[in-house]
Amino acid sequence: MTVEVFALGGYGEAGGRNMTAVRVDEEIVIFDCGMSLDKILIFEKDFQKATTRELRKVNAIPDDSPLKPHRSKVVAAVLSHGHLDHIGAASKILFRYQCNIFGTDFTVELVKSDLKGEERYRSETEDIKISMYAVEPGDEVQISSKLRLEFIPISHSIPGTVLPVLHTPYGAIVYACDFKFDDHQLLGYKPDYKRLKELGKEGVLLLIPESLRVKEEMKTPSEAVAREMVKDTLQFAEEESEGIIVTTFSSHIERIQTIADTAERLGRNVMLVGRSMGKYARIAEELGLLNLPPGSRVYDKPETVARGLHRANKEKEDWLLIVTGHQGEPGAVLPRIADDELPYKLTENDSIVFSSSTIPSPLNKAQMYSLDTKLRMKGVKMFKDVHVSGHAGREDHRLLLRMLQPEYILPAHGDADMLSAYAEFASQEGYEINKDVFVTFEGTKVTIPL
Amino acid sequence: MTVEVFALGGYGEAGGRNMTAVRVDEEIVIFDCGMSLDKILIFEKDFQKATTRELRKVNAIPDDSPLKPHRSKVVAAVLSHGHLDHIGAASKILFRYQCNIFGTDFTVELVKSDLKGEERYRSETEDIKISMYAVEPGDEVQISSKLRLEFIPISHSIPGTVLPVLHTPYGAIVYACDFKFDDHQLLGYKPDYKRLKELGKEGVLLLIPESLRVKEEMKTPSEAVAREMVKDTLQFAEEESEGIIVTTFSSHIERIQTIADTAERLGRNVMLVGRSMGKYARIAEELGLLNLPPGSRVYDKPETVARGLHRANKEKEDWLLIVTGHQGEPGAVLPRIADDELPYKLTENDSIVFSSSTIPSPLNKAQMYSLDTKLRMKGVKMFKDVHVSGHAGREDHRLLLRMLQPEYILPAHGDADMLSAYAEFASQEGYEINKDVFVTFEGTKVTIPL
Amino acid sequence: MTVEVFALGGYGEAGGRNMTAVRVDEEIVIFDCGMSLDKILIFEKDFQKATTRELRKVNAIPDDSPLKPHRSKVVAAVLSHGHLDHIGAASKILFRYQCNIFGTDFTVELVKSDLKGEERYRSETEDIKISMYAVEPGDEVQISSKLRLEFIPISHSIPGTVLPVLHTPYGAIVYACDFKFDDHQLLGYKPDYKRLKELGKEGVLLLIPESLRVKEEMKTPSEAVAREMVKDTLQFAEEESEGIIVTTFSSHIERIQTIADTAERLGRNVMLVGRSMGKYARIAEELGLLNLPPGSRVYDKPETVARGLHRANKEKEDWLLIVTGHQGEPGAVLPRIADDELPYKLTENDSIVFSSSTIPSPLNKAQMYSLDTKLRMKGVKMFKDVHVSGHAGREDHRLLLRMLQPEYILPAHGDADMLSAYAEFASQEGYEINKDVFVTFEGTKVTIPL
Amino acid sequence: MTVEVFALGGYGEAGGRNMTAVRVDEEIVIFDCGMSLDKILIFEKDFQKATTRELRKVNAIPDDSPLKPHRSKVVAAVLSHGHLDHIGAASKILFRYQCNIFGTDFTVELVKSDLKGEERYRSETEDIKISMYAVEPGDEVQISSKLRLEFIPISHSIPGTVLPVLHTPYGAIVYACDFKFDDHQLLGYKPDYKRLKELGKEGVLLLIPESLRVKEEMKTPSEAVAREMVKDTLQFAEEESEGIIVTTFSSHIERIQTIADTAERLGRNVMLVGRSMGKYARIAEELGLLNLPPGSRVYDKPETVARGLHRANKEKEDWLLIVTGHQGEPGAVLPRIADDELPYKLTENDSIVFSSSTIPSPLNKAQMYSLDTKLRMKGVKMFKDVHVSGHAGREDHRLLLRMLQPEYILPAHGDADMLSAYAEFASQEGYEINKDVFVTFEGTKVTIPL
Repeated sequence: MTVEVFALGGYGEAGGRNMTAVRVDEEIVIFDCGMSLDKILIFEKDFQKATTRELRKVNAIPDDSPLKPHRSKVVAAVLSHGHLDHIGAASKILFRYQCNIFGTDFTVELVKSDLKGEERYRSETEDIKISMYAVEPGDEVQISSKLRLEFIPISHSIPGTVLPVLHTPYGAIVYACDFKFDDHQLLGYKPDYKRLKELGKEGVLLLIPESLRVKEEMKTPSEAVAREMVKDTLQFAEEESEGIIVTTFSSHIERIQTIADTAERLGRNVMLVGRSMGKYARIAEELGLLNLPPGSRVYDKPETVARGLHRANKEKEDWLLIVTGHQGEPGAVLPRIADDELPYKLTENDSIVFSSSTIPSPLNKAQMYSLDTKLRMKGVKMFKDVHVSGHAGREDHRLLLRMLQPEYILPAHGDADMLSAYAEFASQEGYEINKDVFVTFEGTKVTIPL
Repeated sequence: MTVEVFALGGYGEAGGRNMTAVRVDEEIVIFDCGMSLDKILIFEKDFQKATTRELRKVNAIPDDSPLKPHRSKVVAAVLSHGHLDHIGAASKILFRYQCNIFGTDFTVELVKSDLKGEERYRSETEDIKISMYAVEPGDEVQISSKLRLEFIPISHSIPGTVLPVLHTPYGAIVYACDFKFDDHQLLGYKPDYKRLKELGKEGVLLLIPESLRVKEEMKTPSEAVAREMVKDTLQFAEEESEGIIVTTFSSHIERIQTIADTAERLGRNVMLVGRSMGKYARIAEELGLLNLPPGSRVYDKPETVARGLHRANKEKEDWLLIVTGHQGEPGAVLPRIADDELPYKLTENDSIVFSSSTIPSPLNKAQMYSLDTKLRMKGVKMFKDVHVSGHAGREDHRLLLRMLQPEYILPAHGDADMLSAYAEFASQEGYEINKDVFVTFEGTKVTIPL
Repeated sequence: MTVEVFALGGYGEAGGRNMTAVRVDEEIVIFDCGMSLDKILIFEKDFQKATTRELRKVNAIPDDSPLKPHRSKVVAAVLSHGHLDHIGAASKILFRYQCNIFGTDFTVELVKSDLKGEERYRSETEDIKISMYAVEPGDEVQISSKLRLEFIPISHSIPGTVLPVLHTPYGAIVYACDFKFDDHQLLGYKPDYKRLKELGKEGVLLLIPESLRVKEEMKTPSEAVAREMVKDTLQFAEEESEGIIVTTFSSHIERIQTIADTAERLGRNVMLVGRSMGKYARIAEELGLLNLPPGSRVYDKPETVARGLHRANKEKEDWLLIVTGHQGEPGAVLPRIADDELPYKLTENDSIVFSSSTIPSPLNKAQMYSLDTKLRMKGVKMFKDVHVSGHAGREDHRLLLRMLQPEYILPAHGDADMLSAYAEFASQEGYEINKDVFVTFEGTKVTIPL
Repeated sequence: MTVEVFALGGYGEAGGRNMTAVRVDEEIVIFDCGMSLDKILIFEKDFQKATTRELRKVNAIPDDSPLKPHRSKVVAAVLSHGHLDHIGAASKILFRYQCNIFGTDFTVELVKSDLKGEERYRSETEDIKISMYAVEPGDEVQISSKLRLEFIPISHSIPGTVLPVLHTPYGAIVYACDFKFDDHQLLGYKPDYKRLKELGKEGVLLLIPESLRVKEEMKTPSEAVAREMVKDTLQFAEEESEGIIVTTFSSHIERIQTIADTAERLGRNVMLVGRSMGKYARIAEELGLLNLPPGSRVYDKPETVARGLHRANKEKEDWLLIVTGHQGEPGAVLPRIADDELPYKLTENDSIVFSSSTIPSPLNKAQMYSLDTKLRMKGVKMFKDVHVSGHAGREDHRLLLRMLQPEYILPAHGDADMLSAYAEFASQEGYEINKDVFVTFEGTKVTIPL
């Protein structure tokens, strides 16, 4: 009778390489397998070309070596949603385990897309068969005689997000990274409150929640709030602007839909520009998650990007551009426009809308500072923070906790401060630190008392 | 041929005692007359009992001594809107000038209400006749053979806000403190873009804009965004709460209406609690600006406050309370509830919604820290920052500037950093610092080149 | 064979009510018993008059209830040094345990002084015999057949600081709250590196280190640096000042000595003003720790304070005042001077030197903001941050860790972020989190694996 | 009778391209000609290869176009000291003016060294004769029938700093960028208080002070404080370290001397490594300003750097390295060591001392964050902030102001916030804003009332 949790990544560092493995007796299930963009930037690695060893050395991907002696026990891996800090290292690590991988269709398609881009992968691992299975939210899958996976519908800032639940002989284990409670998303499905409450009554052994925003004393605002912001801002910008450029998260399909719909209402055609903008949009369109208005264009290859922008530059008032680069990432479309490297000339009659917020790492801040300085010198109008978060605030967490009533809690996906803040929050809700709720760090293993 | 501006208050300090006087040849018009809450707190003054001399000594009210030699020239005073940092010192200072005072009805009623509260005033000044006149947004008033006042409809976070314009033989002088561009307010009127553009064509000599949020690269979000936030939050809170308390600015009538309407939809009766909550609500109701749902209650006297809360405490699920204390002000209702000084007992099943944001002065931060510590110890659910600002962001400012095209600009209502930031912004828009746009400070006088 | 640690206070909150109890089989030793000044301020308690129950309710003193079932096991209590966050609650809590209390002479005298001030104490507890024993740094005391206490000389910002070591059958337990490594203090003794290294070789089972400044990548500067700062500043101030006032920590005897010596060299007499300034100085003088220059005065009672300041005000250039109030505490001397409540009139020819730094709580920041505003309005010259910390930086911690090589570590005296930062630091030094080093929180108990 | 000041650079932006021109009737004198490192980083320019036009476009060097119509009036240029933000653009701009350039010997040698590095310069300007003259602190030079320059000895963080004074028929103009009052520097000379007071009595028309640290309520600590810090830190590091690396400002010759002397006392040889470390050290040695201990080495060329580090790596305990890279600048020695690009392998037994502080631009913070992350992963000991500033604090400024008693003040070398803060400070000292003290910005011109 053993339940052990391997904290492989994301414990003690925010925004990084999330990975957790749960051992139930002689079987192991892996949850997520993400990458740290911060480390990629610090060590200036080309992710796709770099080897697993190189990336592990700089902490850009999880260190799964604690699983080494247990490799044969791994029976399944689950990907909760398609953000890079949750799936980015799948192509580097997960294929080493001869296990089935589960995720919703959007998540699975994103991993497949990554695998295709993985240059080294093709030669090295040609003979390896990746077994990935797309599940529907609400599905249950028996993965062994004792273990069953369930995928509870939840809301987040990317389509196809679920809360994976591992049903074990000792109770349910709920992996709640990442989520927020939003009843007003237009895309997809609502959080399944009914099922969460049922689950609480059935008995939850362990909850593994994200902790990024547990210090924020609020319920994270609904995407409905972001919709109002987008409409209000674009309508205002439209009045006095020639060109309008919006930059947002390529994976935030609902946001892109809102922006595109608003553009249509304002009489502008939509142009998506940038490599990742194209990647996510195509997959979303194929799955019926994104419906760009008629006349929309997507340019995601170096040559087409230039061609598209050339055209948009000549017909500024006809287009609303949705581009990559909201964090000022070098190489993305907006920074390159700001550097005059692309054929779209910004003037004081153009508007740039950031439907995003700056991720608070020093590297992002520096990139944004550079981008800002350049844009301001061109006199463009800027609209920042037209955005709401996709991560649970303290009151989202409280609701989840009260519905599930888990016996034990292991806060994840946060730096030391955030993990501790979750623990303190849980202690307010009656949990005892170090007895019911455990603050742990990467590379450690926690044994759940049974 | 002289146009001189006396920067009497609010130049070099944010959130304070705004007061500006404009001299046109031999006539002077005063704009606003506010008080500094920060100084009241630092020096622990009882505002109503304190003398003008005492308050001036601690910089809590404007120092109008530069106007002393010119007292007889003052022909009119204008109050742009009813916030305390714009009208709070009217009862202490303005009555010394034998001039007519203009404001919209809500503003005028607020000043009258302050005058009644002014204990010392009654004895000292019984024989003084205050001549206050309520104007309608859009009105024009000839105040002398050469000068005419116009009141342009604009949006802000209190009803009855206008942009006063002083028409002079040398061009128009526009006093734009405070404002935002919001096309989606439900209460009152829209900004009069058409008139602003006309005015720009007629010729604006001088613009005196607020500068509090000119560094924010955005258009300030519409109140429509706040409405979504309020609905989303209250609906969420309703699910799992017994008591619900909302705290917000007493003067923000539209917000109070939104909260009250939402309460009604959720099946709760509304109870307004607190001295200033009562004061503003009564005036707003009389003027038809606020329509509380049937069954609503207002308690604003010490004894009724206690009685009301006693009742609400017994019927927690029936009521939604709207109370004072969003900045943790000692003596306001919410801090007193947190201190167990009032008969409403908070538990972990109650929710407190802050439809406000903390004003970033060290004193407010300390008050909020104390309040927070106490509320957290009681285990209540908290929802912070359910709010949007009422002050112009950089893009609101840009739009105003481009519509008005003033010859000269004198940034007001901001600390040194904000005034300078406005100047830098204006220089991006083609103005020349120290030639067309002047950074000035309290106690100084600026002569406008004609 | 049991070693258990009760984390009673200071685990998860910085600057507070430090208290730790260590159980070794059937005996318990208590380390420190401090109070939280922050909580006293938030809840506006009069510490001396408040009951233990009231203070515990607001978290102002440690909650020792986990020790209730074990009261008879407590064989000794140790006070590591005389700061209030380490001894402040001794008078409220420790006397309930019928145990001997050990500390160096300065520490013991401070507790005795507190006991005298404890009004309620006298009536309630007249018959209780407090057994306090003053030890010398370097002493060892056998406290039971199995347990021995040792007091290793160390440096900190108050005289008489030691690292208490509990020698047990299972190895030594070192309580390292608070300390820094400073070889250049003039007062007292040097850190006993030799003994620390020996101890490391003998075998340390557990280290309980403070963690306040473990994130600071430095060795905390020596008091020799502060000496240079004090001399440089006072010499500069002397040139152009009439009055000179220095404010610093009353307990920082070495700093007061430095200031007084510098005053003497500059030809000024020294006047210590303020209640706690008097209390600490008298005890320090009695123990031979402080030697004020001839002609110095100490005023610490309301009437003498006024008299002293009256005199100093008439002979400004003859005196250098050392006063309380460096955190802007209401009621302390400097804030009262700033409020014109005391007969010392500040002008633009006076200098105020803060030989201290602002403790970063919102309440302190607000107090300092008020004090600053008032002082600035008087035009005085101000010299802030003439100070170095007394707490270990990261490199002090590293040195201690490498010398002691403990088997286990339990970081203390820090908020969640600091405790976690210590754990991360220790993991760099080869410790394993949750296995060798434990992040724990108030109210919890940690069992040390033997 | 005209005195006009052209604010060409450094007005409204900290840490940048300082340049001021003063017109006295028909003659102009230029003060300083610096570059903005921030802009070089943002726009990724190779400074030496870039043209004046390119650099001006990105605001990396001053825009001297307002001087265009007055070129023939320029009779002299003065360089106050050798920091890049004061002399860095001399090679790009000053040679266009056919004027004599004055500076102390260290400053002049640095400019000459820059000119040699200026690749483009050689071809383009071969025939241009730069007339640079080295003056002694205390010297006076008659530059025209009406104008005389004086160079008052002052202290700062680089040798050869002076306060240039332009004596005009209308009074003296004092350019006080940059300075601090330090009576305990070992290198060079003391501030000439006597002369400053005399000057105040003779009559100062205008003071142009730096304003970077005017908000710091202090006298900037003496270099004597830094000496204690360096000694304390290095002695501590020596105890337990194999390798010791110190990084500091290459131009801070006194600091380098202190570090080198301390190394000698600790029995380590000194090795200076890095291009700019070599450049400054050589010039300083030639001028007798730096005396490295016997056995010291300087490596400043790519091949010798590698060779030197290779040797130091084999004899770690014999050397103390002083290297470039204290801001994490890519390409400097320390970041390259951290990247394993140079043959010096860091381990947990090595110490790195930052005798510097991070310049608070987002770009520097990001560079330092990367460097920190890398160094921490290697487990090295780090000692940050072993440093005091070279810039005047508020009390240094007050002393200068009271000695000089200028009629007018034009704060320079600061962002808008700092310039405004100086103005507010001056208003406390009795100056009137916009009348006696002018907040101005780059590109503007201020006429001094005579």
